[in-house]
Amino acid sequence: MSKFFNHQLKTIERETMIKITHLVREDVRKSKIISGIILVYCPHTTSGITINENADPHVIMDLLYTFRKVFPANDPNYLHYEGNSHAHVKSALMGNTVNLILDNGEIVLGTWQDIFFCDFDGPREREFFVKIIEG
Amino acid sequence: MSKFFNHQLKTIERETMIKITHLVREDVRKSKIISGIILVYCPHTTSGITINENADPHVIMDLLYTFRKVFPANDPNYLHYEGNSHAHVKSALMGNTVNLILDNGEIVLGTWQDIFFCDFDGPREREFFVKIIEG
Amino acid sequence: MSKFFNHQLKTIERETMIKITHLVREDVRKSKIISGIILVYCPHTTSGITINENADPHVIMDLLYTFRKVFPANDPNYLHYEGNSHAHVKSALMGNTVNLILDNGEIVLGTWQDIFFCDFDGPREREFFVKIIEG
Repeated sequence: MSKFFNHQLKTIERETMIKITHLVREDVRKSKIISGIILVYCPHTTSGITINENADPHVIMDLLYTFRKVFPANDPNYLHYEGNSHAHVKSALMGNTVNLILDNGEIVLGTWQDIFFCDFDGPREREFFVKIIEG
Repeated sequence: MSKFFNHQLKTIERETMIKITHLVREDVRKSKIISGIILVYCPHTTSGITINENADPHVIMDLLYTFRKVFPANDPNYLHYEGNSHAHVKSALMGNTVNLILDNGEIVLGTWQDIFFCDFDGPREREFFVKIIEG
Repeated sequence: MSKFFNHQLKTIERETMIKITHLVREDVRKSKIISGIILVYCPHTTSGITINENADPHVIMDLLYTFRKVFPANDPNYLHYEGNSHAHVKSALMGNTVNLILDNGEIVLGTWQDIFFCDFDGPREREFFVKIIEG
């Protein structure tokens, strides 16, 4: 058995990481699946999905700062006409999926882990998908 | 049910990203599986698999350029005797798998998404695997 | 059918990459599953899991060196009070999972591939999980 869910979200900043763990948990509850794996999938090429620290919001700020520092937006050698090549790079590096273990009805997450949707070229209307496979 | 496919490809440049979406789609068609997840797996340590923009080829060129800029090939501190440590770094960062959702007989991809095989140490004979699991 | 395994490990250096392939192979043997997919999951936010070269240990040293060079620990702009933001960045970039294909009772790995647990903020007591799903 499997279930497929679809989520819309609106980002309001140019670069942002938004917690989506509660949305994935709600999908798990609705699915009634208690053991399996979960795939969270981002269908965009200038955003991504990752897992990182949930407690101190400075961690996320430091992460976005590091990305801006190492992969600056305004490199004069970029060829892509839209001017957002830096966001494509960040998306590729962050990855557009996370994989989770579902055990005993709960998502297996470390104490400090939350799932984040990352927008590197907002603000925009975005979406992500959740596929839960029993097993 | 599941299906396992094997693909060979020959890269002709030192660094390149090659669209393989049509090959994965063909595997899906042959598998006759209409719902599940797909794992695309690269068995090499100086190449990788990623998902990024399919429309403007400049995006891929900017991505490879950024990787060369930030992770240059000729760092004198590299110890590995083969001289391709930069390619191992890029492979680790890009990742050697992508995960896809299969729904209603179609791979769930965003409008601008294609799957790419990335070679960071070509030209070489390369391969990749596709595992489709029903669910 | 599926099986879920739990592993503890103790890292003894500040930054390290430790081969765990043999541990995942042992889980596969115990599971008695011969075809499917394997998810190796790290529940920490300053460590990760990756696949890279197993032969020359200099590759791993070059990888950790490159990470230290490009994402230095002591950036004065970091806000996070624990002072380990660089490790959170490395964790996000390396990723906290790997996905493997299980075929004919064997993990499908390239000749030069091994699975590594990466600690970017050790030494610590760490753990990782292995979920094997039949299919």
